Amino acid sequence: MPTGYRHTRDDDIVYPEDEYELTEDGRIPIPYRRTAKYKDGNTIDWLHEEGLERERNHALRSQAGIRGILLPALESARLWFIVIATGIGIGIAGAWLDVLVKWLGDLREGRCSYGFFYNSNACCTGLSPGELCEDWQSWGDYLRIKSILGHSLLQASIYVVLAIAFAGSAAYLVVTYAPHAFHTGIPEIKAILGGYVFDSFFSPWTLLIKALGLALAVASGLSLGKEGPLVHVACCMAYLLSQLFKEFRHNEAQKRRVLAAAAAAGVSVAFGSPLGGVLFGLEELDTFANESDVMWRGFVASAIAAVSLQWVNPFGTTKLVLFQVTFVSDTWRLFELIPWITLGVIGGILGSLLIKLNVEIALYRRNSVLNDWPVLEVISVSAVTAAVSYLIVFARVQTSELVANLFQECDSAKGDYHGLCNPTATLENVFLLCLTAILKIVLTAWTFGMMVPAGIFLPTIGIGACLGRAMGLIMQSLYRAHPTAWIFLSCPPDPSVRCISPGFYAVIGASAMLGGVTRMTISLVVILFELTGALSHVLPIMICVMTSKWVGDALGKEGIYSAWIAMRRYPWLPPATYRDAGETGATLMKPLARVVAIRDAVTTVRELRALLAAHDFHGFPVIDSHNEFVGYATKQELGTVLERLQLDESGGDLDKTCTFSATNRLRVDALERVDLSDALEASVIQLRKEVPQELVVNMFQKLNLRQILFTHAGKLTGLVTKRDVVDLLTRQFPHAAALCEHPPHRQ
Amino acid sequence: MPTGYRHTRDDDIVYPEDEYELTEDGRIPIPYRRTAKYKDGNTIDWLHEEGLERERNHALRSQAGIRGILLPALESARLWFIVIATGIGIGIAGAWLDVLVKWLGDLREGRCSYGFFYNSNACCTGLSPGELCEDWQSWGDYLRIKSILGHSLLQASIYVVLAIAFAGSAAYLVVTYAPHAFHTGIPEIKAILGGYVFDSFFSPWTLLIKALGLALAVASGLSLGKEGPLVHVACCMAYLLSQLFKEFRHNEAQKRRVLAAAAAAGVSVAFGSPLGGVLFGLEELDTFANESDVMWRGFVASAIAAVSLQWVNPFGTTKLVLFQVTFVSDTWRLFELIPWITLGVIGGILGSLLIKLNVEIALYRRNSVLNDWPVLEVISVSAVTAAVSYLIVFARVQTSELVANLFQECDSAKGDYHGLCNPTATLENVFLLCLTAILKIVLTAWTFGMMVPAGIFLPTIGIGACLGRAMGLIMQSLYRAHPTAWIFLSCPPDPSVRCISPGFYAVIGASAMLGGVTRMTISLVVILFELTGALSHVLPIMICVMTSKWVGDALGKEGIYSAWIAMRRYPWLPPATYRDAGETGATLMKPLARVVAIRDAVTTVRELRALLAAHDFHGFPVIDSHNEFVGYATKQELGTVLERLQLDESGGDLDKTCTFSATNRLRVDALERVDLSDALEASVIQLRKEVPQELVVNMFQKLNLRQILFTHAGKLTGLVTKRDVVDLLTRQFPHAAALCEHPPHRQ
Repeated sequence: MPTGYRHTRDDDIVYPEDEYELTEDGRIPIPYRRTAKYKDGNTIDWLHEEGLERERNHALRSQAGIRGILLPALESARLWFIVIATGIGIGIAGAWLDVLVKWLGDLREGRCSYGFFYNSNACCTGLSPGELCEDWQSWGDYLRIKSILGHSLLQASIYVVLAIAFAGSAAYLVVTYAPHAFHTGIPEIKAILGGYVFDSFFSPWTLLIKALGLALAVASGLSLGKEGPLVHVACCMAYLLSQLFKEFRHNEAQKRRVLAAAAAAGVSVAFGSPLGGVLFGLEELDTFANESDVMWRGFVASAIAAVSLQWVNPFGTTKLVLFQVTFVSDTWRLFELIPWITLGVIGGILGSLLIKLNVEIALYRRNSVLNDWPVLEVISVSAVTAAVSYLIVFARVQTSELVANLFQECDSAKGDYHGLCNPTATLENVFLLCLTAILKIVLTAWTFGMMVPAGIFLPTIGIGACLGRAMGLIMQSLYRAHPTAWIFLSCPPDPSVRCISPGFYAVIGASAMLGGVTRMTISLVVILFELTGALSHVLPIMICVMTSKWVGDALGKEGIYSAWIAMRRYPWLPPATYRDAGETGATLMKPLARVVAIRDAVTTVRELRALLAAHDFHGFPVIDSHNEFVGYATKQELGTVLERLQLDESGGDLDKTCTFSATNRLRVDALERVDLSDALEASVIQLRKEVPQELVVNMFQKLNLRQILFTHAGKLTGLVTKRDVVDLLTRQFPHAAALCEHPPHRQ
Repeated sequence: MPTGYRHTRDDDIVYPEDEYELTEDGRIPIPYRRTAKYKDGNTIDWLHEEGLERERNHALRSQAGIRGILLPALESARLWFIVIATGIGIGIAGAWLDVLVKWLGDLREGRCSYGFFYNSNACCTGLSPGELCEDWQSWGDYLRIKSILGHSLLQASIYVVLAIAFAGSAAYLVVTYAPHAFHTGIPEIKAILGGYVFDSFFSPWTLLIKALGLALAVASGLSLGKEGPLVHVACCMAYLLSQLFKEFRHNEAQKRRVLAAAAAAGVSVAFGSPLGGVLFGLEELDTFANESDVMWRGFVASAIAAVSLQWVNPFGTTKLVLFQVTFVSDTWRLFELIPWITLGVIGGILGSLLIKLNVEIALYRRNSVLNDWPVLEVISVSAVTAAVSYLIVFARVQTSELVANLFQECDSAKGDYHGLCNPTATLENVFLLCLTAILKIVLTAWTFGMMVPAGIFLPTIGIGACLGRAMGLIMQSLYRAHPTAWIFLSCPPDPSVRCISPGFYAVIGASAMLGGVTRMTISLVVILFELTGALSHVLPIMICVMTSKWVGDALGKEGIYSAWIAMRRYPWLPPATYRDAGETGATLMKPLARVVAIRDAVTTVRELRALLAAHDFHGFPVIDSHNEFVGYATKQELGTVLERLQLDESGGDLDKTCTFSATNRLRVDALERVDLSDALEASVIQLRKEVPQELVVNMFQKLNLRQILFTHAGKLTGLVTKRDVVDLLTRQFPHAAALCEHPPHRQ
């Protein structure tokens, strides 16, 4: 059952106890005392973690002499070390993945005559311009097959067989060694950055298998991209590096700060788009909204990752821009807004369709026999993909190569890509492009969610580029047919001068499709023009993304990542403004009668132990006998404090009463009580149940809370947890929690 | 005394009372009932405003039939109308300002022979390439002055006299009609978006004078730019448009949402940088962090503003990119990082220096005789600027023209700009560029803060471009002298092939200087490459901005806008993460003993009236006789509710007791009490005074609060207001509140 949703509480990360020396009086030193040990599936308590960090900082700074200066500086240096090392690491890893993918991909078509490990480009370097490369041989030529039929058959079967072999081994690796390495990883990372605990998502095995499996999956020609998985790989690197240092290992909030920077670096490498990386973090991962320092670190990580990618320079182009476009002219004409906005509308509709299709297929996969045969599913899909793709000329090459060609203007010097520039074959080309787009929509909707690492960006760009180029070709042939029509008045009157750039229409189509699928806005625009270098055309791209998002939002609010988060029921709060319909906090609240609480100066140690054993809640409110609110204590802290008391297990210690507050302590005889006030949290948020529900939701969104307690005139009236708010906000999504088996316990 | 700091509570905006019809039972209808009337100088209560909005929305939606659907839709349409109209308006205004500035600026050197109102470009259109333009005549030629000395003297004196006339009239207009139109406006807008109330900052007069004065000030050749003021103009437009509709007039939170979008549109037009506008709003104005919808609206406003600017197309170039750069090659070499990082360091140092100088001059201006003669100061500075600038060739032209030329590569086809490309005059050029930079630093530090509309961006870019170009020239001459040195190994061995692009060094210099002065990061990078089109060089720009910010932050944490905010003591919370040194909320809190509170079921109407008259606080906590916290009521609400009761002024009504809660109401005889529970706020945040101080600060930053009440076991222990937090966070700034005369009353 390697589908990644049964991770909730199987593997408990326990930190070794011998990492700190006890203080002279035998207590655990402050910086480490309040370490919460979260299990996977929990949600961290940001206030608690920030409190830990604060205590630690304070302890470090108050050290005598030079240590009080050096230790904090060292700590900050460690943070920057992780950020910079992750940037360099993912830059180099990204570059070498590109090389691996290129070699594996080329291997499907042929090999280099003088060395097996050369890809087609490396094999043919050093030739003078115009010289034909004879060292790169197709398998038919290499094996000296003379018959044309035999040659074609051999080529096709090697193509399909290798595709199946790559995809199958990727799936086998994922299923066997690292089930968390499947899919894109972005939904999980969004949830984790928001406070979800999922440490096994970043294990060394996951890192290795995700990177290797990604290369195999991309090379197999499946309809998937490498962007999301690269973000996951970058986060794995940052996580593993952060495990070197106590302050990150023990503090979930600090750990997340580093992960946010790593995610930016991942996008930066995936698209060669350092700015896009920062903005992706800002808009999609919603991390930097909380702290400007995090944004700044993301900026640095992103820049360093791009520098190292460019330094490795896998293909000797010294360019970051992946799909360099060169347009005929820098200007565009107002009438072109009509086809572009049309593309925006199409992108919005098809994007929503792709999301719906993907969700339905995911549900079908889960509830059918496919669930038990993940590797077989991957193999069949890759066989179908390879077979169908081999037949359609535009689908045969890697999606990235297709996109690069679709973005390119027709230029007689560069040659014609599969007849795309042939003015007499416009209709055939439009048909072929639309066919490719439809095929890719179906294949992508199926592929995204199988047991292989898979990103959604590149296939979406491919679909959009096909549609956009088709639209461009239609416009171009219209213009050629009626160069003097009033709509083309702003074009030069001579039809031999180009007025329409079909290549740019492909870029617009890609933006529209991406807007419809991801519902990102500003980061998308930045990524797109960092990808293409089409800075002068930023306005049409913006307008098109706007249209596509508007149309898409009208057809369904969620982007594809939010849909997956909702299906897997991760405790992630969408940042959108929530407006209630007049409800108050009372509607959302779990009332006191249903809350499991500890009673100050009443509950005995034995009862407390029973309580802790019976309930798997994160923590418990403490109230006195008149329901007056005393405080909130986490299960973890209660356990730690109880342990530290070294109670006599057999004797009467277990019948002593637990006290938490100074006033209530006096009600119990000194010999009959144990003081647990240390276990109370310093930061507790209280509200009245009459406050508007939207304020409650807003506080959870902005302050990253885990729970809010409701009191009235000092008396506890109820509580709300993050899970309640998440359920409220995902209520409207029809398949919420469809892919989640074990709803976690909560209070 | 027109210096803009005495606006605190002079002009009270009172909304006409006849805007709504009373309900059948004679009460004010819900949507308008709780309208707070803030005075300038106050801080809005976001929770209160959001509550109003919620009630309004709820009332609209719950209307019967078609009205319940139409009214909310209409409301959303109004919002979009304002956003789109502001975008179009500022786009057109920005374009015409450009035209006006160009004409006024050209007027200083000459006139068009066939029409006074043509600028030099318009005058010379329609010529075939290579033809000399004879229609544009210098004043000397126009007046037929033959003697060379007389010609030069006439030119110089007309140049200086017109500069003084323009600057003087700008200052006169500002001082006489709209004192708030001086300076950049960004600090005020930051504060206003954060909740500061300053309605007179957006008056129609301010709009008019700021736009006109800006054109005059820029044309006068003073060392200032148009960016900040354009943001202010855009915000004025949005504000005035929003006044058309009740829902914005009555709701400060809604008003601010519209202003945030307008600010993005302003930057978009100022730099021709639609993306940069959104990011500026995001990073510098810190507005979109709160809500993704606001970001989305800023995106739309920004795009529309850029489209209308491009549509008006003031100079017939059909380009948004202001300073199009064309580099010799798309690649850069690793060794160039050395001069670039050096530029970053220089930018950081000089940026900090410029801020310090500017602050000192502002303080000197305030405390010296200059304070009483603002127009005279502007006239003298413009005379000095004009005279000195006329002598130095690079400083004579408009800064924008200088920057455009410095960013340009040397190209024999385009001609040589004042000998900048002469390889034998490198030393002279470097000296001249450095001199220009130093001159501009001093002039800018003085000009930014005088009584004219003034932006800091363009002068800073000018300074940086001079320094960068100088560095580029030094590197170029080094390379020419030693083309085979090991450091230049990566360059082509033939020195006639260009390896160093001094034009791009100027771009880098500008980034460095901007980074040092504004301390922005990502929005700066985006603005810079939208300005220049230098997408392939995004990495060096990022690295340079990073370095400059690091160096600058080491020399002083504030950017120039934050420095001005601190000096004027606006209640604006820096978004930076605050870490306390172990303090709790108790340190920050005003303890109960010093809080003016209303006593539930004790205070009489007469006492309450006296209380309201005696204290100018925003609101008062309500407690009962045992200090139990009952609620919080604003002064405004108390007044409204008291008025509504229509008490008998002469009779015994004034001795009735005010009750606020159900429990305490029972303690007073029914005839002896008036019920004021309506006046209590629905959303009140309570904390315990033991919480860490950083949590308190964090809640103020993220939730935009106005006050937090501290309670313990239901009893009020104290309160903290936004002002206390602002004072805490600006404590480290040496000249905090130096430009603020009347510290506002607060509780």
